[in-house]
Amino acid sequence: MTTSSEAGRRPRAADRRPRVVLFDVFETMLQVDALGARFVDVGRPAHEWELFFTRTLRDGMALTLAGAAPPFGEVARAALRTTTGHTLSDEALDHVLAGFAHLPPHPDVEPALVALAHARVPTYAFTHGSAKTACDALDRAGLRTYLRGVHSAEAIGSFKPPARVYDWVCGQVDSPLDRTGLVAVHSWDVHGAVRAGLVGALATRLEGRVPAVVEPPHVSATRVDTAVERLLALPA
Amino acid sequence: MTTSSEAGRRPRAADRRPRVVLFDVFETMLQVDALGARFVDVGRPAHEWELFFTRTLRDGMALTLAGAAPPFGEVARAALRTTTGHTLSDEALDHVLAGFAHLPPHPDVEPALVALAHARVPTYAFTHGSAKTACDALDRAGLRTYLRGVHSAEAIGSFKPPARVYDWVCGQVDSPLDRTGLVAVHSWDVHGAVRAGLVGALATRLEGRVPAVVEPPHVSATRVDTAVERLLALPA
Repeated sequence: MTTSSEAGRRPRAADRRPRVVLFDVFETMLQVDALGARFVDVGRPAHEWELFFTRTLRDGMALTLAGAAPPFGEVARAALRTTTGHTLSDEALDHVLAGFAHLPPHPDVEPALVALAHARVPTYAFTHGSAKTACDALDRAGLRTYLRGVHSAEAIGSFKPPARVYDWVCGQVDSPLDRTGLVAVHSWDVHGAVRAGLVGALATRLEGRVPAVVEPPHVSATRVDTAVERLLALPA
Repeated sequence: MTTSSEAGRRPRAADRRPRVVLFDVFETMLQVDALGARFVDVGRPAHEWELFFTRTLRDGMALTLAGAAPPFGEVARAALRTTTGHTLSDEALDHVLAGFAHLPPHPDVEPALVALAHARVPTYAFTHGSAKTACDALDRAGLRTYLRGVHSAEAIGSFKPPARVYDWVCGQVDSPLDRTGLVAVHSWDVHGAVRAGLVGALATRLEGRVPAVVEPPHVSATRVDTAVERLLALPA
Protein backbone atom coordinates (compact mmCIF):
# COMPACT_ATOMS: atom_id res chain seq x y z
CA MET A 1 0.00 0.00 0.00
CA THR A 2 2.97 2.34 0.36
CA THR A 3 5.16 3.59 -2.42
CA SER A 4 8.91 3.50 -2.19
CA SER A 5 9.05 7.05 -3.56
CA GLU A 6 7.24 8.44 -0.53
CA ALA A 7 9.06 11.48 0.80
CA GLY A 8 10.76 11.18 4.17
CA ARG A 9 10.09 7.47 4.44
CA ARG A 10 12.17 5.97 7.24
CA PRO A 11 14.07 2.69 6.90
CA ARG A 12 12.39 -0.38 8.38
CA ALA A 13 14.13 -1.68 11.51
CA ALA A 14 16.04 -4.95 11.09
CA ASP A 15 14.60 -8.15 12.59
CA ARG A 16 16.50 -7.86 15.86
CA ARG A 17 15.48 -8.54 19.44
CA PRO A 18 14.54 -5.22 21.08
CA ARG A 19 16.38 -3.97 24.16
CA VAL A 20 13.31 -2.12 25.44
CA VAL A 21 9.65 -2.99 24.89
CA LEU A 22 6.61 -0.68 24.88
CA PHE A 23 3.16 -2.12 25.50
CA ASP A 24 -0.08 -0.53 24.37
CA VAL A 25 -2.59 -0.43 27.27
CA PHE A 26 -6.29 -0.36 26.31
CA GLU A 27 -7.41 -3.55 24.57
CA THR A 28 -3.81 -4.88 24.46
CA MET A 29 -3.28 -5.22 28.24
CA LEU A 30 -6.75 -4.42 29.58
CA GLN A 31 -10.23 -5.61 28.53
CA VAL A 32 -12.04 -2.49 27.35
CA ASP A 33 -15.16 -4.56 26.55
CA ALA A 34 -15.73 -4.63 30.32
CA LEU A 35 -17.08 -1.07 29.80
CA GLY A 36 -20.16 -2.76 28.28
CA ALA A 37 -21.52 -3.50 31.78
CA ARG A 38 -21.34 0.21 32.63
CA PHE A 39 -23.31 1.07 29.47
CA VAL A 40 -26.00 -1.32 30.71
CA ASP A 41 -25.85 0.32 34.17
CA VAL A 42 -26.84 3.66 32.59
CA GLY A 43 -29.57 2.17 30.38
CA ARG A 44 -27.67 1.77 27.10
CA PRO A 45 -26.99 -1.41 25.07
CA ALA A 46 -23.78 -3.22 26.07
CA HIS A 47 -22.45 -3.34 22.49
CA GLU A 48 -22.34 0.47 22.37
CA TRP A 49 -18.99 0.47 24.23
CA GLU A 50 -17.27 -0.49 20.99
CA LEU A 51 -18.78 2.29 18.87
CA PHE A 52 -17.98 4.75 21.67
CA PHE A 53 -14.35 3.61 21.95
CA THR A 54 -13.81 3.55 18.17
CA ARG A 55 -15.36 7.02 17.90
CA THR A 56 -13.09 8.31 20.68
CA LEU A 57 -10.02 7.13 18.79
CA ARG A 58 -11.34 8.47 15.47
CA ASP A 59 -12.04 11.88 17.00
CA GLY A 60 -8.71 12.01 18.82
CA MET A 61 -6.91 11.16 15.58
CA ALA A 62 -8.95 13.76 13.66
CA LEU A 63 -8.06 16.44 16.22
CA THR A 64 -4.41 15.37 16.01
CA LEU A 65 -4.52 15.64 12.20
CA ALA A 66 -6.03 19.11 12.47
CA GLY A 67 -3.23 20.35 14.70
CA ALA A 68 -3.40 19.27 18.35
CA ALA A 69 -5.48 16.90 20.41
CA PRO A 70 -6.98 17.71 23.81
CA PRO A 71 -6.54 15.09 26.57
CA PHE A 72 -8.05 11.63 25.97
CA GLY A 73 -10.56 12.13 28.81
CA GLU A 74 -12.08 15.21 27.14
CA VAL A 75 -12.29 13.50 23.75
CA ALA A 76 -13.85 10.41 25.34
CA ARG A 77 -16.44 12.46 27.26
CA ALA A 78 -17.50 14.31 24.10
CA ALA A 79 -17.66 11.02 22.15
CA LEU A 80 -19.73 9.41 24.90
CA ARG A 81 -22.22 12.30 24.88
CA THR A 82 -22.59 12.05 21.10
CA THR A 83 -22.76 8.24 20.98
CA THR A 84 -25.52 8.18 23.62
CA GLY A 85 -27.52 10.94 21.93
CA HIS A 86 -27.02 13.49 24.74
CA THR A 87 -29.34 11.45 26.96
CA LEU A 88 -26.92 10.78 29.86
CA SER A 89 -26.54 12.90 33.00
CA ASP A 90 -23.08 14.07 34.07
CA GLU A 91 -23.18 11.39 36.78
CA ALA A 92 -23.91 8.68 34.22
CA LEU A 93 -21.08 9.94 31.96
CA ASP A 94 -18.73 9.87 34.99
CA HIS A 95 -19.81 6.32 35.82
CA VAL A 96 -19.01 5.01 32.34
CA LEU A 97 -15.71 6.92 32.02
CA ALA A 98 -14.53 5.83 35.49
CA GLY A 99 -14.63 2.31 34.08
CA PHE A 100 -11.33 2.93 32.26
CA ALA A 101 -9.51 2.68 35.62
CA HIS A 102 -11.22 -0.63 36.49
CA LEU A 103 -10.63 -2.86 33.47
CA PRO A 104 -9.61 -6.50 33.98
CA PRO A 105 -6.36 -7.73 32.41
CA HIS A 106 -6.26 -9.91 29.33
CA PRO A 107 -4.98 -13.33 30.49
CA ASP A 108 -2.25 -13.52 27.82
CA VAL A 109 -0.49 -10.38 29.11
CA GLU A 110 1.03 -11.41 32.45
CA PRO A 111 2.89 -14.39 30.89
CA ALA A 112 4.29 -11.98 28.29
CA LEU A 113 5.48 -9.57 30.99
CA VAL A 114 7.02 -12.44 32.96
CA ALA A 115 8.95 -13.55 29.87
CA LEU A 116 10.24 -10.00 29.32
CA ALA A 117 11.29 -9.75 32.99
CA HIS A 118 13.13 -13.08 32.76
CA ALA A 119 14.86 -11.85 29.61
CA ARG A 120 15.88 -8.62 31.43
CA VAL A 121 14.12 -6.44 28.85
CA PRO A 122 12.83 -3.21 30.45
CA THR A 123 9.14 -2.83 29.65
CA TYR A 124 6.96 0.29 29.66
CA ALA A 125 3.29 0.98 29.02
CA PHE A 126 2.61 3.47 26.21
CA THR A 127 -0.88 4.88 25.76
CA HIS A 128 -2.63 7.96 24.41
CA GLY A 129 -5.03 7.79 27.31
CA SER A 130 -4.32 9.49 30.62
CA ALA A 131 -1.10 8.17 32.21
CA LYS A 132 -2.77 8.47 35.64
CA THR A 133 -5.79 6.40 34.57
CA ALA A 134 -3.53 3.84 32.91
CA CYS A 135 -1.40 3.59 36.10
CA ASP A 136 -4.48 3.12 38.29
CA ALA A 137 -5.94 0.53 35.95
CA LEU A 138 -2.66 -1.41 35.63
CA ASP A 139 -2.23 -1.32 39.41
CA ARG A 140 -5.70 -2.79 39.96
CA ALA A 141 -5.14 -5.36 37.22
CA GLY A 142 -1.95 -6.53 38.94
CA LEU A 143 0.32 -5.71 35.99
CA ARG A 144 2.02 -2.51 37.08
CA THR A 145 4.83 -4.21 39.02
CA TYR A 146 6.21 -5.60 35.76
CA LEU A 147 6.50 -2.13 34.24
CA ARG A 148 9.34 0.35 34.60
CA GLY A 149 7.00 3.22 33.73
CA VAL A 150 3.83 4.41 32.01
CA HIS A 151 3.99 7.05 29.27
CA SER A 152 1.22 8.86 27.44
CA ALA A 153 1.35 10.76 24.14
CA GLU A 154 -1.07 13.14 25.86
CA ALA A 155 2.10 14.86 27.10
CA ILE A 156 2.74 16.11 23.55
CA GLY A 157 -0.90 16.78 22.59
CA SER A 158 -1.11 13.85 20.21
CA PHE A 159 -2.92 10.58 19.76
CA LYS A 160 -0.99 7.70 18.19
CA PRO A 161 0.22 6.84 15.50
CA PRO A 162 2.30 9.70 13.95
CA ALA A 163 6.09 9.13 13.95
CA ARG A 164 6.63 11.96 16.42
CA VAL A 165 4.89 10.06 19.25
CA TYR A 166 7.22 7.07 18.87
CA ASP A 167 10.23 9.41 18.62
CA TRP A 168 9.08 11.09 21.82
CA VAL A 169 8.52 7.91 23.81
CA CYS A 170 11.84 6.43 22.70
CA GLY A 171 13.45 9.60 24.05
CA GLN A 172 11.57 9.16 27.33
CA VAL A 173 12.82 5.59 27.74
CA ASP A 174 16.26 6.42 26.32
CA SER A 175 16.22 3.73 23.65
CA PRO A 176 17.11 3.93 19.94
CA LEU A 177 14.11 3.49 17.61
CA ASP A 178 15.37 0.33 15.93
CA ARG A 179 16.12 -1.42 19.25
CA THR A 180 12.69 -0.62 20.71
CA GLY A 181 9.74 -2.97 20.33
CA LEU A 182 6.06 -2.01 20.34
CA VAL A 183 3.45 -4.64 21.26
CA ALA A 184 -0.21 -3.97 20.45
CA VAL A 185 -3.42 -5.56 19.24
CA HIS A 186 -4.22 -2.56 16.99
CA SER A 187 -2.65 -2.99 13.59
CA TRP A 188 -2.62 0.80 13.01
CA ASP A 189 -0.50 1.30 16.15
CA VAL A 190 2.03 -1.33 15.09
CA HIS A 191 1.92 0.14 11.55
CA GLY A 192 2.80 3.59 12.91
CA ALA A 193 5.61 2.17 15.05
CA VAL A 194 7.09 0.14 12.18
CA ARG A 195 6.97 3.14 9.86
CA ALA A 196 8.63 5.25 12.55
CA GLY A 197 11.52 2.75 12.64
CA LEU A 198 10.61 0.56 15.65
CA VAL A 199 10.28 -3.24 15.82
CA GLY A 200 6.58 -4.10 15.68
CA ALA A 201 4.78 -7.04 17.31
CA LEU A 202 1.10 -7.51 16.51
CA ALA A 203 -1.19 -9.80 18.49
CA THR A 204 -4.14 -10.57 16.23
CA ARG A 205 -6.58 -11.69 18.92
CA LEU A 206 -8.59 -8.46 18.47
CA GLU A 207 -8.57 -8.04 14.68
CA GLY A 208 -8.30 -11.69 13.62
CA ARG A 209 -5.63 -11.17 10.95
CA VAL A 210 -3.01 -8.69 9.78
CA PRO A 211 -5.05 -6.29 7.58
CA ALA A 212 -3.95 -5.80 3.96
CA VAL A 213 -3.54 -2.03 4.36
CA VAL A 214 -0.79 -1.95 7.00
CA GLU A 215 2.96 -2.32 7.02
CA PRO A 216 3.77 -5.94 7.96
CA PRO A 217 4.75 -6.29 11.64
CA HIS A 218 8.13 -7.86 12.43
CA VAL A 219 6.36 -10.62 14.35
CA SER A 220 2.73 -11.57 14.87
CA ALA A 221 0.71 -14.23 16.67
CA THR A 222 -2.85 -14.57 17.88
CA ARG A 223 -1.88 -14.19 21.55
CA VAL A 224 0.18 -11.44 23.14
CA ASP A 225 2.46 -13.87 25.00
CA THR A 226 3.25 -15.76 21.79
CA ALA A 227 3.95 -12.51 19.94
CA VAL A 228 6.36 -11.50 22.71
CA GLU A 229 8.07 -14.93 22.60
CA ARG A 230 8.65 -14.36 18.88
CA LEU A 231 10.03 -10.89 19.59
CA LEU A 232 12.45 -12.35 22.14
CA ALA A 233 13.47 -15.09 19.70
CA LEU A 234 14.77 -12.55 17.16
CA PRO A 235 18.59 -12.48 16.84
CA ALA A 236 20.31 -10.08 19.24
CA MET B 1 -9.17 23.21 23.96
CA THR B 2 -6.49 24.90 21.87
CA THR B 3 -3.76 27.13 23.15
CA SER B 4 -3.00 30.46 21.60
CA SER B 5 0.70 29.63 21.74
CA GLU B 6 0.31 26.70 19.35
CA ALA B 7 2.96 26.88 16.64
CA GLY B 8 1.84 27.59 13.09
CA ARG B 9 -1.72 28.27 14.12
CA ARG B 10 -3.60 29.90 11.24
CA PRO B 11 -5.91 32.87 11.69
CA ARG B 12 -9.61 32.12 11.87
CA ALA B 13 -11.53 33.28 8.79
CA ALA B 14 -13.79 36.30 9.32
CA ASP B 15 -17.58 35.79 9.40
CA ARG B 16 -18.10 36.48 5.71
CA ARG B 17 -20.31 34.85 3.11
CA PRO B 18 -18.24 32.35 1.15
CA ARG B 19 -17.83 32.68 -2.63
CA VAL B 20 -17.43 28.91 -3.08
CA VAL B 21 -18.94 26.14 -0.96
CA LEU B 22 -17.65 22.60 -0.40
CA PHE B 23 -20.01 19.87 0.76
CA ASP B 24 -19.00 16.73 2.58
CA VAL B 25 -20.65 13.69 0.94
CA PHE B 26 -21.15 10.62 3.18
CA GLU B 27 -23.60 11.28 6.03
CA THR B 28 -23.84 14.99 5.11
CA MET B 29 -25.46 14.57 1.65
CA LEU B 30 -26.13 10.82 1.58
CA GLN B 31 -27.66 8.46 4.15
CA VAL B 32 -24.89 6.02 5.05
CA ASP B 33 -27.22 4.24 7.50
CA ALA B 34 -28.85 2.72 4.41
CA LEU B 35 -25.84 0.34 4.42
CA GLY B 36 -27.55 -1.35 7.40
CA ALA B 37 -29.88 -3.24 5.03
CA ARG B 38 -26.85 -4.67 3.21
CA PHE B 39 -25.38 -5.89 6.51
CA VAL B 40 -28.66 -7.73 7.10
CA ASP B 41 -28.48 -9.14 3.54
CA VAL B 42 -25.17 -10.83 4.42
CA GLY B 43 -26.32 -12.10 7.82
CA ARG B 44 -24.96 -9.38 10.09
CA PRO B 45 -26.84 -7.05 12.48
CA ALA B 46 -28.03 -3.80 10.86
CA HIS B 47 -26.42 -1.60 13.53
CA GLU B 48 -22.97 -2.89 12.57
CA TRP B 49 -22.84 -0.39 9.65
CA GLU B 50 -22.00 2.38 12.12
CA LEU B 51 -19.11 0.58 13.82
CA PHE B 52 -17.79 -0.39 10.38
CA PHE B 53 -17.99 3.18 9.04
CA THR B 54 -16.46 4.71 12.20
CA ARG B 55 -13.66 2.14 12.08
CA THR B 56 -13.01 2.92 8.42
CA LEU B 57 -12.57 6.60 9.22
CA ARG B 58 -10.42 5.84 12.30
CA ASP B 59 -8.16 3.53 10.29
CA GLY B 60 -7.91 5.97 7.37
CA MET B 61 -6.97 8.74 9.77
CA ALA B 62 -4.43 6.49 11.54
CA LEU B 63 -2.81 5.60 8.21
CA THR B 64 -2.76 9.31 7.29
CA LEU B 65 -1.09 10.15 10.63
CA ALA B 66 1.51 7.45 10.03
CA GLY B 67 2.48 8.87 6.63
CA ALA B 68 0.07 8.13 3.78
CA ALA B 69 -3.37 6.59 3.41
CA PRO B 70 -4.31 4.03 0.76
CA PRO B 71 -7.57 4.63 -1.14
CA PHE B 72 -10.80 4.73 0.91
CA GLY B 73 -12.08 1.56 -0.77
CA GLU B 74 -9.09 -0.47 0.45
CA VAL B 75 -9.36 0.88 3.99
CA ALA B 76 -13.11 0.21 4.02
CA ARG B 77 -12.67 -3.36 2.75
CA ALA B 78 -10.09 -4.15 5.46
CA ALA B 79 -12.31 -2.55 8.14
CA LEU B 80 -15.32 -4.54 6.92
CA ARG B 81 -13.36 -7.79 7.11
CA THR B 82 -12.23 -7.02 10.66
CA THR B 83 -15.63 -5.75 11.87
CA THR B 84 -17.38 -8.87 10.60
CA GLY B 85 -14.78 -11.22 12.12
CA HIS B 86 -13.48 -12.46 8.75
CA THR B 87 -16.72 -14.39 8.22
CA LEU B 88 -17.81 -12.78 4.92
CA SER B 89 -17.01 -14.07 1.43
CA ASP B 90 -15.52 -11.72 -1.15
CA GLU B 91 -18.97 -11.57 -2.78
CA ALA B 92 -20.57 -10.52 0.50
CA LEU B 93 -17.88 -7.86 1.06
CA ASP B 94 -18.51 -6.58 -2.49
CA HIS B 95 -22.25 -6.45 -1.86
CA VAL B 96 -21.89 -4.31 1.27
CA LEU B 97 -19.23 -1.99 -0.23
CA ALA B 98 -21.23 -1.48 -3.45
CA GLY B 99 -23.85 0.11 -1.21
CA PHE B 100 -21.78 3.31 -1.03
CA ALA B 101 -22.81 4.10 -4.63
CA HIS B 102 -26.53 3.56 -3.85
CA LEU B 103 -27.22 5.73 -0.81
CA PRO B 104 -30.38 7.83 -0.66
CA PRO B 105 -30.06 11.61 -0.20
CA HIS B 106 -30.80 13.35 3.09
CA PRO B 107 -33.97 15.44 2.51
CA ASP B 108 -32.42 18.66 3.85
CA VAL B 109 -29.67 18.71 1.20
CA GLU B 110 -31.50 19.53 -2.07
CA PRO B 111 -33.06 22.71 -0.56
CA ALA B 112 -29.57 23.78 0.52
CA LEU B 113 -28.17 23.20 -2.97
CA VAL B 114 -31.09 25.10 -4.54
CA ALA B 115 -30.39 28.06 -2.23
CA LEU B 116 -26.71 28.05 -3.20
CA ALA B 117 -27.62 27.87 -6.91
CA HIS B 118 -30.03 30.81 -6.54
CA ALA B 119 -27.30 32.74 -4.75
CA ARG B 120 -24.86 31.95 -7.60
CA VAL B 121 -22.38 30.31 -5.25
CA PRO B 122 -20.45 27.54 -7.03
CA THR B 123 -20.73 24.32 -5.01
CA TYR B 124 -18.51 21.24 -5.02
CA ALA B 125 -18.57 17.90 -3.24
CA PHE B 126 -15.47 17.16 -1.17
CA THR B 127 -14.92 13.65 0.18
CA HIS B 128 -12.12 11.33 1.21
CA GLY B 129 -13.98 8.48 -0.39
CA SER B 130 -13.53 7.57 -4.04
CA ALA B 131 -14.52 10.48 -6.32
CA LYS B 132 -15.98 7.96 -8.80
CA THR B 133 -18.16 6.31 -6.13
CA ALA B 134 -19.25 9.71 -4.82
CA CYS B 135 -20.14 10.85 -8.39
CA ASP B 136 -22.18 7.68 -9.03
CA ALA B 137 -23.95 7.97 -5.70
CA LEU B 138 -24.73 11.70 -6.13
CA ASP B 139 -26.00 11.01 -9.68
CA ARG B 140 -28.39 8.32 -8.44
CA ALA B 141 -29.46 10.51 -5.52
CA GLY B 142 -30.38 13.32 -7.95
CA LEU B 143 -27.93 15.82 -6.44
CA ARG B 144 -25.08 15.87 -8.93
CA THR B 145 -26.63 18.47 -11.27
CA TYR B 146 -26.26 21.09 -8.53
CA LEU B 147 -22.52 20.49 -8.24
CA ARG B 148 -19.74 22.00 -10.31
CA GLY B 149 -17.44 19.10 -9.43
CA VAL B 150 -16.54 16.31 -7.04
CA HIS B 151 -13.11 16.23 -5.38
CA SER B 152 -11.49 13.59 -3.18
CA ALA B 153 -8.51 13.90 -0.84
CA GLU B 154 -7.67 10.39 -2.07
CA ALA B 155 -5.81 12.27 -4.85
CA ILE B 156 -3.18 13.33 -2.29
CA GLY B 157 -3.12 10.11 -0.23
CA SER B 158 -4.90 11.64 2.74
CA PHE B 159 -8.08 11.38 4.71
CA LYS B 160 -9.56 14.57 6.15
CA PRO B 161 -8.97 16.69 8.28
CA PRO B 162 -5.32 17.91 8.09
CA ALA B 163 -4.88 21.50 6.80
CA ARG B 164 -3.18 20.26 3.63
CA VAL B 165 -6.38 18.64 2.31
CA TYR B 166 -8.30 21.91 2.57
CA ASP B 167 -5.37 23.79 1.01
CA TRP B 168 -5.38 21.28 -1.82
CA VAL B 169 -9.12 21.41 -2.52
CA CYS B 170 -9.17 25.22 -2.41
CA GLY B 171 -6.47 25.11 -5.08
CA GLN B 172 -8.58 22.71 -7.13
CA VAL B 173 -11.60 25.00 -7.01
CA ASP B 174 -9.45 28.15 -7.31
CA SER B 175 -10.83 29.83 -4.21
CA PRO B 176 -9.01 31.57 -1.32
CA LEU B 177 -9.28 29.70 1.99
CA ASP B 178 -11.12 32.45 3.85
CA ARG B 179 -13.76 32.85 1.11
CA THR B 180 -14.47 29.10 0.93
CA GLY B 181 -17.15 27.44 3.03
CA LEU B 182 -17.24 23.83 4.18
CA VAL B 183 -20.58 22.23 5.07
CA ALA B 184 -20.59 18.96 7.02
CA VAL B 185 -22.36 17.02 9.75
CA HIS B 186 -19.03 15.80 11.22
CA SER B 187 -17.71 18.29 13.75
CA TRP B 188 -14.13 17.08 13.22
CA ASP B 189 -14.35 17.92 9.49
CA VAL B 190 -15.64 21.44 10.17
CA HIS B 191 -13.00 21.76 12.94
CA GLY B 192 -10.24 20.90 10.47
CA ALA B 193 -11.61 23.33 7.88
CA VAL B 194 -11.96 26.18 10.39
CA ARG B 195 -8.42 25.61 11.69
CA ALA B 196 -7.14 25.57 8.10
CA GLY B 197 -8.69 29.03 7.58
CA LEU B 198 -12.01 28.22 5.86
CA VAL B 199 -15.53 29.26 6.87
CA GLY B 200 -17.18 26.32 8.65
CA ALA B 201 -20.87 25.37 8.69
CA LEU B 202 -21.91 22.48 10.93
CA ALA B 203 -25.29 20.77 10.70
CA THR B 204 -25.84 19.05 14.05
CA ARG B 205 -28.48 16.55 12.90
CA LEU B 206 -25.95 13.71 13.19
CA GLU B 207 -24.12 14.59 16.42
CA GLY B 208 -26.89 16.46 18.24
CA ARG B 209 -24.73 19.38 19.43
CA VAL B 210 -21.42 21.10 18.79
CA PRO B 211 -18.96 19.01 20.86
CA ALA B 212 -16.87 20.80 23.50
CA VAL B 213 -13.57 19.66 21.96
CA VAL B 214 -13.82 21.34 18.55
CA GLU B 215 -13.20 24.82 17.20
CA PRO B 216 -16.58 26.61 17.04
CA PRO B 217 -18.04 26.62 13.52
CA HIS B 218 -18.89 29.99 11.95
CA VAL B 219 -22.53 28.89 11.67
CA SER B 220 -24.49 25.89 12.86
CA ALA B 221 -28.04 24.58 12.77
CA THR B 222 -29.71 21.22 13.16
CA ARG B 223 -30.52 20.93 9.44
CA VAL B 224 -28.17 21.32 6.49
CA ASP B 225 -30.47 23.74 4.64
CA THR B 226 -30.72 26.02 7.68
CA ALA B 227 -26.95 25.94 8.18
CA VAL B 228 -26.50 26.95 4.52
CA GLU B 229 -29.07 29.77 4.89
CA ARG B 230 -27.00 31.09 7.80
CA LEU B 231 -23.85 30.84 5.71
CA LEU B 232 -25.51 32.84 2.92
CA ALA B 233 -26.75 35.42 5.43
CA LEU B 234 -23.21 36.33 6.48
CA PRO B 235 -22.04 39.79 5.29
CA ALA B 236 -20.39 39.79 1.86
